[in-house]
Amino acid sequence: MAAAVLFAVRHGVDELATRGVSPPSLVVVLVGSNPASNSYITKKLQAAKECGILARKHALPETASEAEIVQAIQTLNATDEVHGIIVQLPLPTHVHAPAVTEAVMHAKDVDGFTMQSLGSVICNGQDPYFCPCTPKGCMRLIESAMGDSSLRGLEVVVIGASNIVGVPMGLLLLRAGCTVTTCHIGTRDVAAHARQADILVVAVGKAGLVGRDWVKPGAIVIDVGINFVSDPSKKSGQRMVGDCADEVRQVAGHLTPVPGGVGPMTVAMLMQNTLEARRRAAGFNAALPAAAPGQDEANALEA
Amino acid sequence: MAAAVLFAVRHGVDELATRGVSPPSLVVVLVGSNPASNSYITKKLQAAKECGILARKHALPETASEAEIVQAIQTLNATDEVHGIIVQLPLPTHVHAPAVTEAVMHAKDVDGFTMQSLGSVICNGQDPYFCPCTPKGCMRLIESAMGDSSLRGLEVVVIGASNIVGVPMGLLLLRAGCTVTTCHIGTRDVAAHARQADILVVAVGKAGLVGRDWVKPGAIVIDVGINFVSDPSKKSGQRMVGDCADEVRQVAGHLTPVPGGVGPMTVAMLMQNTLEARRRAAGFNAALPAAAPGQDEANALEA
Repeated sequence: MAAAVLFAVRHGVDELATRGVSPPSLVVVLVGSNPASNSYITKKLQAAKECGILARKHALPETASEAEIVQAIQTLNATDEVHGIIVQLPLPTHVHAPAVTEAVMHAKDVDGFTMQSLGSVICNGQDPYFCPCTPKGCMRLIESAMGDSSLRGLEVVVIGASNIVGVPMGLLLLRAGCTVTTCHIGTRDVAAHARQADILVVAVGKAGLVGRDWVKPGAIVIDVGINFVSDPSKKSGQRMVGDCADEVRQVAGHLTPVPGGVGPMTVAMLMQNTLEARRRAAGFNAALPAAAPGQDEANALEA
Repeated sequence: MAAAVLFAVRHGVDELATRGVSPPSLVVVLVGSNPASNSYITKKLQAAKECGILARKHALPETASEAEIVQAIQTLNATDEVHGIIVQLPLPTHVHAPAVTEAVMHAKDVDGFTMQSLGSVICNGQDPYFCPCTPKGCMRLIESAMGDSSLRGLEVVVIGASNIVGVPMGLLLLRAGCTVTTCHIGTRDVAAHARQADILVVAVGKAGLVGRDWVKPGAIVIDVGINFVSDPSKKSGQRMVGDCADEVRQVAGHLTPVPGGVGPMTVAMLMQNTLEARRRAAGFNAALPAAAPGQDEANALEA
């Protein structure tokens, strides 16, 4: 599915080119050198390349002050050649992250992390800005699992209440007509809630948190967790897993794998948002051209 | 409680005066002449007068175009003497309401209806703008009912998912540590959810929706509904009621009355937001001075 999105984005970039519009341009602001951040950025730059988006890293030293980072973002805000700006998190501890993410101008906020973008999710996308990429990608996965069935009236449980995943995820599903319960570390009995869910979204970051007894048979389970557990059979000595135990697949109707599930969809949605930013900057409406009918999703990039 | 808030606002206005700062100024933009709107505006102007806020109505004709309304708001945005601007809803049907409410600049958005203000609720108030008045007032009522007990881990059900009441209400309670379920017209079994709630907030607008069998014994019930039912014993032929049937008081631990519950708290929170806007415009921090210790809430305005 992520490949199909990237394919559609490439199609959109090509279509802009036929109208004489230059490719979308994305800048990833990185402060310091977190190894995980470098790995994520590599994936984003690779995805951008695959769909014709010009993406580059704008690296600042670990010692950069908050004011210096904000200044760098403001320079990118003022540059017409840049259409999307994201700040790779986490930032060094001496920096107040919200002050930095909020500095990205709304029209270039392709991560959807600013307050105006988040508020737009409450208002059901009434303004022309961007939905955060992870919940947007999860929505695509859920809609795909639902096929032609309506989400209206389904019971949803979201475990995790972060600003950029759990809360906007719940809001998107609420606006799609679901009844949404948001659980978190303070919830008295998460399992009891989870067992009621037709759709269960888990975004906690705790390997094996969700066992099969937490899942209603046939439920759609979206695993947003990224955890590393030791695995002597791997060269690195560790293995990436989600928040769901393996046994969940025995009861779930649908389960996203980790790795290879939500992660690639998140990156793909970032590319889609960047294309949308470019289209708006060029004065086109934001709607993404539909993928070609009958497009084989798994092989989309080979087509 | 509303009177105590107004008293504290009056104290804050007086304190500003001792520093040579002029009173807060609030403008209510009214388009056309909806009788209910006039009644609400009268209450707001009266509350403002009680606490020393300069408030006035800015009336536009029913036929005003969206562009004319937005232009009027922009003029108020640009006027230093105006600290808070609200748009009385509903607007005439030929006007796209979100385009109008979004025109209010964030620093004067004392109703908290703009996307940036709503986004700030997701982010736990990380920016200096305003929380919508009704959910903010409901939080005060809930905290008062809780006394010294923590909200953390309590089960909350919010019935109603509007942008300006249900959704921000759920977010405020989520950020206070509650487990929050949001129900609405599409929910399969609202009663089953409601019966699990330690705190039940009802914001639907349907008289008698919630009966005693929907309420967990001892629950805190916040009734945001405003409905009119026929009552021949009244001169007007009708009576204002909430969304809860009278019998709810037999089982609820706390229940807000209608009228006289959430409504006055909403107006009081508008005054508090307007004072905050004035304080910020004058370069002070936004914290409201605490009410005098031991203040008798019921008699606050007579003190």
